[in-house]
Amino acid sequence: MKLHHSSNSPFVRKCLVTAAELGLSDQLERLACAASPVTRDRDIIASNPLGQVPTLTTDDGQVLYDSRVICEYLNNLAGGSLYPQDLRQRWTALTDQSLADGILDAALLVRYETTLRPEQYRWADWITGQLDKFTTALTHFETRVSGFGGRVDIGTITLACALRYLDLRYPDLQWRDQYPRLTAWYQVYSQRPACQVI
Amino acid sequence: MKLHHSSNSPFVRKCLVTAAELGLSDQLERLACAASPVTRDRDIIASNPLGQVPTLTTDDGQVLYDSRVICEYLNNLAGGSLYPQDLRQRWTALTDQSLADGILDAALLVRYETTLRPEQYRWADWITGQLDKFTTALTHFETRVSGFGGRVDIGTITLACALRYLDLRYPDLQWRDQYPRLTAWYQVYSQRPACQVI
Repeated sequence: MKLHHSSNSPFVRKCLVTAAELGLSDQLERLACAASPVTRDRDIIASNPLGQVPTLTTDDGQVLYDSRVICEYLNNLAGGSLYPQDLRQRWTALTDQSLADGILDAALLVRYETTLRPEQYRWADWITGQLDKFTTALTHFETRVSGFGGRVDIGTITLACALRYLDLRYPDLQWRDQYPRLTAWYQVYSQRPACQVI
Repeated sequence: MKLHHSSNSPFVRKCLVTAAELGLSDQLERLACAASPVTRDRDIIASNPLGQVPTLTTDDGQVLYDSRVICEYLNNLAGGSLYPQDLRQRWTALTDQSLADGILDAALLVRYETTLRPEQYRWADWITGQLDKFTTALTHFETRVSGFGGRVDIGTITLACALRYLDLRYPDLQWRDQYPRLTAWYQVYSQRPACQVI
């Protein structure tokens, strides 16, 4: 399988961690590319009209995106259990994935606003609104994380990727100061071998 | 079930059309709300920390989002066939959903840029990059739509919602002028009873 890849994309990382959890890392060949919402990468667009990473080409030539589809495909390929069979647990895992994906969407929008967009076109209210999603989302996870137990599923994988991305791009947030239970959970969870993938 | 709803949200519409395809429309109670990425709606946030619609509360009290999770939940609840059992068809349907969702994401970002953001902070390159996604995505669907046959799945539902949203918000695009096969497909598909939902 070939994965259009960008080393700083948190959504690519989500696929790499998922592959590692499933023992599939060796089967993923990484294709470096330079996705950007403004200078669009024509190499990626040839496979994925959205011009975004991650994009996966399977061994039988099917092109899959985005990260949600790729992760589910990988889980199916490996006969994995990252998507719970129990329905209530399944919807919880998928909604947690949506929430953590939403943190990442907001994080990327703020990053585009503060690094890609020329300074004179930046709008403080937009940044405030997106950053507020971090607060409401992390507060929500903080209230629930004590009940996660040993969960390892697509929801917890995505949450771990979101927290790592906040550490990478928003160290000044110092989210650990406000969310002690989430901090304790992540301290243990992030030591999983799959989370060491680079 | 209760659906946090905004009448102009294309992602809400996707859930409503899906529910209609599955015969579940009567079971969805709509809760009106005013989601915005800048003035965030605290009523929605109490259920969904992202403050976005659609958000669904199931009859047994589980809160689900975003549209992808809600549509899959509805399909499962109804024992529907909007997610193909055949794996190759399933990944195609899910990737088509991602692509059409991507059109909608771009359409919303352009709309926020051109209506919500104060004029002095608008950035032409951002708009150009997002609008280019319409072109590359519609060109891709144009090359494949002749092979869709009688497909009715989460991919075609989302595509129809995306085309409808382009008609609603971007009539000047006149997409039909450039994509005759997509036009022919949509002309037939949009007459399905489920697509008449308001």
